[in-house]
Amino acid sequence: MPPPSPPPPWSTALPDPALPAGGPPLEDLAERLFAALRALSFDGTGITRECYTPVETAALRLVEQEARRLGLETGWDDGANLWACLPGTAPELPAVTCGSHLDSVPQGGNFDGAAGVIAGLLALARLKAAGFRPRRSLRLLALRGEESAFYGQAYLGSLALAGRLGPADLAARHVSGRGTLGEAMAATGLDTARIARGEPLADLSRMACWLELHIEQGPVLVARRMPVAVVTGIRGNLRHRAVECLGEAGHSGAVPRWLRHDAVFAVAELITRLDRHWRTLLERGRDLVVTSGILGTDPAEHAMARIPGRVTFSLDIRSQSPETLEGFYDLFLSECAGIAEERGVRFTPGRRIDAAPARMDEGLTALLREELRGMNLPDEPLPSGAGHDAAVFANAGVPSAMIFVRNTHGSHNPMEAMAMEDFHAGAELLRRGLERLSA
Amino acid sequence: MPPPSPPPPWSTALPDPALPAGGPPLEDLAERLFAALRALSFDGTGITRECYTPVETAALRLVEQEARRLGLETGWDDGANLWACLPGTAPELPAVTCGSHLDSVPQGGNFDGAAGVIAGLLALARLKAAGFRPRRSLRLLALRGEESAFYGQAYLGSLALAGRLGPADLAARHVSGRGTLGEAMAATGLDTARIARGEPLADLSRMACWLELHIEQGPVLVARRMPVAVVTGIRGNLRHRAVECLGEAGHSGAVPRWLRHDAVFAVAELITRLDRHWRTLLERGRDLVVTSGILGTDPAEHAMARIPGRVTFSLDIRSQSPETLEGFYDLFLSECAGIAEERGVRFTPGRRIDAAPARMDEGLTALLREELRGMNLPDEPLPSGAGHDAAVFANAGVPSAMIFVRNTHGSHNPMEAMAMEDFHAGAELLRRGLERLSA
Repeated sequence: MPPPSPPPPWSTALPDPALPAGGPPLEDLAERLFAALRALSFDGTGITRECYTPVETAALRLVEQEARRLGLETGWDDGANLWACLPGTAPELPAVTCGSHLDSVPQGGNFDGAAGVIAGLLALARLKAAGFRPRRSLRLLALRGEESAFYGQAYLGSLALAGRLGPADLAARHVSGRGTLGEAMAATGLDTARIARGEPLADLSRMACWLELHIEQGPVLVARRMPVAVVTGIRGNLRHRAVECLGEAGHSGAVPRWLRHDAVFAVAELITRLDRHWRTLLERGRDLVVTSGILGTDPAEHAMARIPGRVTFSLDIRSQSPETLEGFYDLFLSECAGIAEERGVRFTPGRRIDAAPARMDEGLTALLREELRGMNLPDEPLPSGAGHDAAVFANAGVPSAMIFVRNTHGSHNPMEAMAMEDFHAGAELLRRGLERLSA
Repeated sequence: MPPPSPPPPWSTALPDPALPAGGPPLEDLAERLFAALRALSFDGTGITRECYTPVETAALRLVEQEARRLGLETGWDDGANLWACLPGTAPELPAVTCGSHLDSVPQGGNFDGAAGVIAGLLALARLKAAGFRPRRSLRLLALRGEESAFYGQAYLGSLALAGRLGPADLAARHVSGRGTLGEAMAATGLDTARIARGEPLADLSRMACWLELHIEQGPVLVARRMPVAVVTGIRGNLRHRAVECLGEAGHSGAVPRWLRHDAVFAVAELITRLDRHWRTLLERGRDLVVTSGILGTDPAEHAMARIPGRVTFSLDIRSQSPETLEGFYDLFLSECAGIAEERGVRFTPGRRIDAAPARMDEGLTALLREELRGMNLPDEPLPSGAGHDAAVFANAGVPSAMIFVRNTHGSHNPMEAMAMEDFHAGAELLRRGLERLSA
């Protein structure tokens, strides 16, 4: 067990979140917690739990309150993440750890991340209620900052624990232009000097393994009519938050085509060429997805009657294969150079952000698949298209595994929908895994 | 002469713009007026004289003050445009009218529009100072609202005079989303009920002709090393302020290509296909320019890790030929339909805005070309790629002609640059034309 930390600044900064009085029954623990989280972070359209802000802290404290009522130990690590613990009889051994994140994208859904935290809490509570005494301590870790929506870099909570963030990350500006990640972290009580030095904020060798339950963010389980699946690996990605294409502004009626340096036509051609390469690579059986989620002319200067002189766009390339990632990235750079020459524009990609693909632990995966079949559920393991904190822990040497729960309408939008029946199947699989691994 | 109007609401709303005391010499009239206009409307980057706002009114009043000092009659028409007059000996005849507009795009240049107003003022002042007594009255008209940047529709000032605006134009929202054109016009003292009924705010049969000097907004005069040219005709345009492409949002890592409905990839493909058609039409000798000056994902919901579910973009198609305009527009609709079907997205074009191409009057054009050669300047007439109020007057039956003045860096940007020597050549050509036409 780590030594008790001094009370962190956020522990008194907010009033206790409202919880119904009396001991909560385990039967509706998950439903009540999901509802309380939603009430805390509904933004009028969807759910917004922005990383390293008071609303994220409030969500973590809601889970802390519940964990204490359930008789679990709780505390905060140096990354301001919450943990809850069912102590083992051999506390000197690395702990079997589960969890996920509690932050969200803007106007996102309530289950992305929170499902894994609540499933972990439910699993620990059920094991404790059943009188189970684990040998290894069982820990739940509720992380901050998994989403990249606000600062461009994903997995901030787990990367900070692993000592894998640096000054460039801390200097990343908030998507609104106001403030930096370092400022938000410092305001949340983190020691950004340690983060800047690349010092791990936690001793990951104290994690025996990492089990993460998460909603599937794609359509595969729905298409295959499966409530739950074990994950085989996690796509890595290469990203640019804001590639700039600089052309030359001009009057839309008065400049002939051959004298134009139109940034919109240049970027449209670039994306169309990348789409063609993407199709070709898929036909050759490569794993790849390509997205430009943010794209636009400059509102400070654009006009209907003005040839656009500047366009910025984000680029997100994902694959399970590092070779495919780098190969496609080379195609991107080469197409930029070709279009720049043909059209007299200039591409400035800015900082490249990398997240390595990750393989899940074979032993853990086999154990979870065995338990899944023991529950009389279909077992078809699945790669993860989206990134997860599990990739960070796996790449830091912590044996990791993931459980996906079926979910319609994807994620990162208010329409995401997970049936509670499917959630409970996933939570039960997690409980079985934790029980076997800690015994 | 029209009867004197009651004092309009804007005549007392602002203090008199600062003018140097004493009678201004004609030699630096233009330089001083350009400087005063710039001082009035510099926005930190360029010039912003937004239509139907106090800054546009202040620019008009600056010209009004100067015209009065020069001994010209002045007044305001029902469209809140300024006129100045050197009365003729036969005032019952329609007046020879010159002018241009005083509004600008955001962060635009100082000469786009203002050059024609100041050249007209200078011409009238020189003719008066020389003791010239015209037979027909000589009028300068300084128009509002020529630019489309704020409400999508161009030529608002001249269209209102011609009775060619309607309820849909008045309901057009400001580009910021705040307020409508009708509200801005009403706040400027215009009778929007008359405009909504399509009632002309002026009797255009009182205009014997319309001569408009304007900076060239393209690069042709610079390339041909000519200070001034007479214009043969004006491109018309078809426009959409905001075509919407609706796809489906989703997680950028978790949805495979074949299940995506990515609005950015759809719009990129559309623009690339339109570019191909454009090249083909140019190879066949057609006159055409195509621009998408405003394009973007939705800042309220876009994120780097989210497949974009919505993109909006403007479209501006221009040609001297109505057949080419309609033909290309059909290609646009047909490509939208094809891409919509292939990619599972939906295009909603919204309101189409038309401006017909216009031919300049052959007699006026010949007279101006003759005077140009009389000034020992090269005479190579030129079509206008950009639209102008002259197109509205020409299409309303007023014989019209235009003079272009050389200008570098195009227009609609703070870099536009007209040499004062070129301006004075153009203003002298205008003066000569006005003298012959009114004699």
